[in-house]
Amino acid sequence: MATKNSTPARQGAQLKTPKGTRDWVGRDLLLRDDIFKTISDVLERHGGIPLDTPVFELRDILSEKYGEDSRLIYDLKDQGGEACSLRYDLTVPFARWLAMRTDVQHIKRYQIAKVYRRDQPAISRGRLREFYQCDFDIAGIYDPMIPDAEILRIIAEVFEAFEMGITIKLNHRNVLDGLFAVAGVPSDKIRPTSSAVDKLDKSPWDEVRAEMLEKGLSAEIADRVGGFVQRSGGMREMLDNLGSDAELSANESVVKGVADMKLLASYLEAMGVIDKVSFDLSLARGLDYYTGLIYEVIPEQADEPTKVGSIAAGGRYDGLVGMYGRRPLPCVGISFGVDRIFTLLDARRKKSRGSELAREADVYVMAFGGKEFEGLLLERMGVASQLWAAGIRAEFSAKVRPKPQQQFNASEGAPVAVILGQDEVEAGQVRVKRLHENAGQRDKGLLVPRENLVEEVKKLLASITLDQNWTEA
Amino acid sequence: MATKNSTPARQGAQLKTPKGTRDWVGRDLLLRDDIFKTISDVLERHGGIPLDTPVFELRDILSEKYGEDSRLIYDLKDQGGEACSLRYDLTVPFARWLAMRTDVQHIKRYQIAKVYRRDQPAISRGRLREFYQCDFDIAGIYDPMIPDAEILRIIAEVFEAFEMGITIKLNHRNVLDGLFAVAGVPSDKIRPTSSAVDKLDKSPWDEVRAEMLEKGLSAEIADRVGGFVQRSGGMREMLDNLGSDAELSANESVVKGVADMKLLASYLEAMGVIDKVSFDLSLARGLDYYTGLIYEVIPEQADEPTKVGSIAAGGRYDGLVGMYGRRPLPCVGISFGVDRIFTLLDARRKKSRGSELAREADVYVMAFGGKEFEGLLLERMGVASQLWAAGIRAEFSAKVRPKPQQQFNASEGAPVAVILGQDEVEAGQVRVKRLHENAGQRDKGLLVPRENLVEEVKKLLASITLDQNWTEA
Repeated sequence: MATKNSTPARQGAQLKTPKGTRDWVGRDLLLRDDIFKTISDVLERHGGIPLDTPVFELRDILSEKYGEDSRLIYDLKDQGGEACSLRYDLTVPFARWLAMRTDVQHIKRYQIAKVYRRDQPAISRGRLREFYQCDFDIAGIYDPMIPDAEILRIIAEVFEAFEMGITIKLNHRNVLDGLFAVAGVPSDKIRPTSSAVDKLDKSPWDEVRAEMLEKGLSAEIADRVGGFVQRSGGMREMLDNLGSDAELSANESVVKGVADMKLLASYLEAMGVIDKVSFDLSLARGLDYYTGLIYEVIPEQADEPTKVGSIAAGGRYDGLVGMYGRRPLPCVGISFGVDRIFTLLDARRKKSRGSELAREADVYVMAFGGKEFEGLLLERMGVASQLWAAGIRAEFSAKVRPKPQQQFNASEGAPVAVILGQDEVEAGQVRVKRLHENAGQRDKGLLVPRENLVEEVKKLLASITLDQNWTEA
Repeated sequence: MATKNSTPARQGAQLKTPKGTRDWVGRDLLLRDDIFKTISDVLERHGGIPLDTPVFELRDILSEKYGEDSRLIYDLKDQGGEACSLRYDLTVPFARWLAMRTDVQHIKRYQIAKVYRRDQPAISRGRLREFYQCDFDIAGIYDPMIPDAEILRIIAEVFEAFEMGITIKLNHRNVLDGLFAVAGVPSDKIRPTSSAVDKLDKSPWDEVRAEMLEKGLSAEIADRVGGFVQRSGGMREMLDNLGSDAELSANESVVKGVADMKLLASYLEAMGVIDKVSFDLSLARGLDYYTGLIYEVIPEQADEPTKVGSIAAGGRYDGLVGMYGRRPLPCVGISFGVDRIFTLLDARRKKSRGSELAREADVYVMAFGGKEFEGLLLERMGVASQLWAAGIRAEFSAKVRPKPQQQFNASEGAPVAVILGQDEVEAGQVRVKRLHENAGQRDKGLLVPRENLVEEVKKLLASITLDQNWTEA
């Protein structure tokens, strides 16, 4: 049975996380949680309800939803029982849930969870194989483009909360499909062409054109596509541009898409976010399930503008729920790339003092004595327990007889010390002392009866907070 | 290529979550988040630092850590690249992290995350294949039993915060190993015997005895083991009991364990939690990596006392980090069974009115008009945007021309309405109105200029909150 996999303790062998994954700890994790909180506050303001689904789904649920990207899905090994795969996004699990919950006619749901893609990782750009997404979707039958507009408004509110400048690139699948048809792309080549076009934000036209030829388009058709999709601009300007193009205006699919976009423009004006959007005909989005409006959010950064790529993306997918055979239900949604947002905010964050693992106590409980000093461990435990019971963050040395210097070092960062000595303990008293840089040795603190300890500590902590606010102001 | 797995939309086929997993939504999820918050508040009070690790680990990392339970590990399929498995618990990933982070000498870390076991699920008892654990561990070299005592204190604080009565069953691996040796269990049968003994909380002695015989113990040895392990009681009482047993007192391993337990008893007294614990010689814990104190938390429930089994468990594991070959580091920890805690709290929770999916808005924005009424959609959007920008939870009908009754129905639960009419809009005014059961038709609300809208809505919401507090008091 001595297989390779059962060798446990080879010296230093493979002591790492799997490729494309990482650990999160301390301050990084707290920043990430702040990001989640900021986003979910906005989503709840818009009526969002939280949903959580399993990390893996039945493999059938995921199949034929992701086009070329399906090869990036992680499968579980066959160990008997059902064939399962790790979720690739949060949209398909939501659609599966909606298909099951036929009692739900309308919902605004959000989900913050990790998703999995066997992609080429690029950790410095915040691109991992395991990463968080934060999705918000509106499901239900509504009048056209109203939920779509609310999603764009939500995007604006979220990035305003992060104080991040953004552009939301918009396009419409109907416009894109019509445009491909007008350019002469055969219908079986529309999805591959679309996926090539989608790379125009990262690759130059030459490369995208080469990919189209490779996929079987003629040079003439590829160039016609190129002429269309390299147009972008403000919504009103682009709507005029499309309206004045006789060829495109004759295509039914384009006409339908343009009508949606006109309606959307008026709603975005009413919601005060029209200046955040750009109508970009090269935006295609790789996924098969989009049926209408699609969008991607690009951060405005003076330095290295496209380093992280899009930081949120989504669109309308009216057919996905119906694919599970129970009932159709139109949906529109947005997925926030939380890890990329983290990368941007982390770069902006002041590299402040304090360790990555810092979590300072409010109170450090210490004890001193002379030669016969036994450490007063049980008494320190009793005092710490009294503070914990009052909700105060307290620590003490986990040594039976700690040295004074050890205790002073360990107390670093705690604003208050509670000091125990043999005489005071016998008299039912403790000393409460402010610990700060300029305190000096002469400050002996305040001697208080044990029963007043919590009250005195709270008073001192409150006065320190006041002082700090005063200093910072 | 038409394999079974690529058939996407068979009518109603397999529309479910994988075996042993479930979705969480709305109120359930909010209760679960409350549980997380309650636990992490206690852990942070004790200096806990959050850690997050990938959902899968290199397979080598998990191997030979879980004894007989290794068969329950989920493996990922070989799709090229590294062999990986889903995490089985949060302890092994923490040990792997500690082994990598040789700069960390001491840490109190906590992690709240899902773990995966291919076990027989029992959903009604809160036992699933994908479930949350919440772990807190203290790593580092300290004087004996001090961190162990703090963990038990933390357990007491957590369940006090939940207002749940508990008993913490304790045992010590050294006591147990010594006891098996004294009973005559051959050293290669100690782990299998231990795993049989561990079932004594669920199975009668006869069955456990039969399992021991099956595992190759003689009837005589099995009965001697049975005589020892069926003893339990308060710490002081059990320490006396073990001390007065001449045979056990002569065993070195028992003596070492008893010395630890004596120290622990004095610390638990100092921390005020000695009355929460019971010393139970049948507690064995299945996992291979425990080396000292072990414990399990049992809820006190008048009705159906053992229905959910243990709701938290842990112990000391001084050898685990060293197994990765870089350096040894002693650890002690506790894992809270969050889903089982949920099952208990959910049963206690009042089945209150309101839907599982309820998330009421603060303000519903509506519009009315006569025959020529065009719906004032853009104006409703503008008003809602004004409220959102002020952080107020606002909704409106996503219909171009909604009927009055539709709007009233949709506003249910919102305490305040903002009402738009053509005349008021033209005059730059809106109507702010309290929506409550006894409001009656005569209450027309307050006509306010658009620029005072947010202020007036906030005033009205605040007065409603005051009224509610008054009514509840």
